[in-house]
Amino acid sequence: MLDGLVISIDAMGGDEAPDIVIHGIEYFLKHTGKGRHARFIIHGDEAQLLPLLAKTPKTRARSEIYHTESVIAMDAKPATAMRRGKGTSMWNAIESVKTGEAKVAVSAGNTGALMAMSKLLLRMKKGVQRPAIAARWPHQEGFGVVLDVGANLECDANQLREFAVLGEAYYRALYKKKKPSIGLLNVGTESLKGNATIQAAHDSLSCSELGLNYIGFVEGNDISMGDVDVIVTDGFTGNIALKTGEGTAQLLGMFIKGALNDNFLSKIASIVNLPALRRMKKRMDPRLGNGGLFLGLNGIVIKSHGGTDAVGYASALNVAIEMADSNFLEEIERTLDALHDEDDNVEIHIP
Amino acid sequence: MLDGLVISIDAMGGDEAPDIVIHGIEYFLKHTGKGRHARFIIHGDEAQLLPLLAKTPKTRARSEIYHTESVIAMDAKPATAMRRGKGTSMWNAIESVKTGEAKVAVSAGNTGALMAMSKLLLRMKKGVQRPAIAARWPHQEGFGVVLDVGANLECDANQLREFAVLGEAYYRALYKKKKPSIGLLNVGTESLKGNATIQAAHDSLSCSELGLNYIGFVEGNDISMGDVDVIVTDGFTGNIALKTGEGTAQLLGMFIKGALNDNFLSKIASIVNLPALRRMKKRMDPRLGNGGLFLGLNGIVIKSHGGTDAVGYASALNVAIEMADSNFLEEIERTLDALHDEDDNVEIHIP
Repeated sequence: MLDGLVISIDAMGGDEAPDIVIHGIEYFLKHTGKGRHARFIIHGDEAQLLPLLAKTPKTRARSEIYHTESVIAMDAKPATAMRRGKGTSMWNAIESVKTGEAKVAVSAGNTGALMAMSKLLLRMKKGVQRPAIAARWPHQEGFGVVLDVGANLECDANQLREFAVLGEAYYRALYKKKKPSIGLLNVGTESLKGNATIQAAHDSLSCSELGLNYIGFVEGNDISMGDVDVIVTDGFTGNIALKTGEGTAQLLGMFIKGALNDNFLSKIASIVNLPALRRMKKRMDPRLGNGGLFLGLNGIVIKSHGGTDAVGYASALNVAIEMADSNFLEEIERTLDALHDEDDNVEIHIP
Repeated sequence: MLDGLVISIDAMGGDEAPDIVIHGIEYFLKHTGKGRHARFIIHGDEAQLLPLLAKTPKTRARSEIYHTESVIAMDAKPATAMRRGKGTSMWNAIESVKTGEAKVAVSAGNTGALMAMSKLLLRMKKGVQRPAIAARWPHQEGFGVVLDVGANLECDANQLREFAVLGEAYYRALYKKKKPSIGLLNVGTESLKGNATIQAAHDSLSCSELGLNYIGFVEGNDISMGDVDVIVTDGFTGNIALKTGEGTAQLLGMFIKGALNDNFLSKIASIVNLPALRRMKKRMDPRLGNGGLFLGLNGIVIKSHGGTDAVGYASALNVAIEMADSNFLEEIERTLDALHDEDDNVEIHIP
């Protein structure tokens, strides 16, 4: 068994797997993961992996290959993936977390299949209805966490409240902030805004005595401003908000590029601005936010974007190492228990 | 009675009304409205308006003041506004459209009150359930139209389909494009994605024989890319998507400003880039997208942002003049009739 913080890798998931995956680990070990005691169980096809590891000495020194023959296709339906899942690199990557060999699993494979397998193998935490996917979102000072971004298209008030608890624990583990603020995404900040579901979630979060730093309703523009750490919403709204923000950033990136290449003189002038512009580009680099966490399971599973590159994959590994190095699962267990106790007490108080 | 295209103005609505309103009209008449036969009925307090008109000769030459004593407060609840609404500048501005004196009403006042009064005075078009608010969204080539952005938090499939018809007619009238494309905002483009409501709307739009250019599901990032002209969604999602996009643009604007003012040399270099950067800033200027249309009424009402300036108010007037100069209301009447006929026929075919 490997020592240190062990991360289980689905090496065959992703558009350009296993190349990007192995180069992502190498990049991680050379940069942010440099001083960390990270080890890797790499699930995948040995014939493809060995030549890659021959070229990535840091990865080779820190990992063990667990050979698998089969792979989940990127476009497989979750149900099909489940029927044929056993023994695939994805299945085995999650199983390493289940057996305790690894603390975290990372996959850039098919999201639906990964979610379905994670639920089956790891099971939900007691009382949690469905897992949520939490994404990171760049803002002025750093990152916020938004959940759910697509696992649950329709959510009731209890789920939204659970997301608040899960997201808060995630933010604490990832960014080491004691009391992250939580906001409920709505069409206005006034307490009367929104539909019945969001109103009920607001009421119960406002009255809760769990000690959460709940600040009330927030609006779409608050996500980028960084005034709130954890943004809670249903998976339909969260997914669309996230992609709309990405689209806007992409459009502005194109405008900036056009503006700075406008004519010969401005091209020259842009060279002077280059270092600062590069830093800006880095601040808004979507790869740095890569790595969505599945929340609510008895184990930690991280989904990397399927089309990312080595730098993006390394970002997902940053999330993985922080989670592996925290007592996140015990913490959410404790908070969820308190949440459900609160529910029970409320029920007793009702005449 | 005024000749030309008559626009009815609620001069007292908005954070800095009536100043911004009157200067907005003046700006419009000096720029995009220069060659248009626009005339204005200005509803508001004569004592405040006369000194303003003395300083805005173009506006004075094209308008008539209709004095009103009372005003709807920006923070009034719609119900309160309705009870005390009669005789206010907002009420009278809409009434000018009802009587046929004006073709369009524009207000920068309280959105809820404007919506409630518009419904009461103008009534809904036959068969339309509730009005929608359509916003413009900048993309690569120009603008897209997104609806609903906040009037209807929960929508059924019939409403979404109605939005498609209303939004398409709006886009045609505003941008003179014969067959604007329509997309339904969803969490993915595959036909199985989304909840039951959006699936039902997709099915009926796909099967419709109204001749709409319906292209299927689109995602959040498609809004900025400009691959689709009319984006249909419920008011909750639309409002949050719009504000998330605005927030992202605001954040990037701050990053750019920081990058170009990084040090002495880059400040100098930025001066060379200034004309191109200014053009870019103009492309992403939120004021140019100002002016949301209330769709589904027997009359045209345009809501300007309450906090905009004269340039932003003039953008809302651009929308107003294009709508006044079109046969938009007749067109949507015709398409809505066809839509409801289609429904009736479908019902007949069911055994």
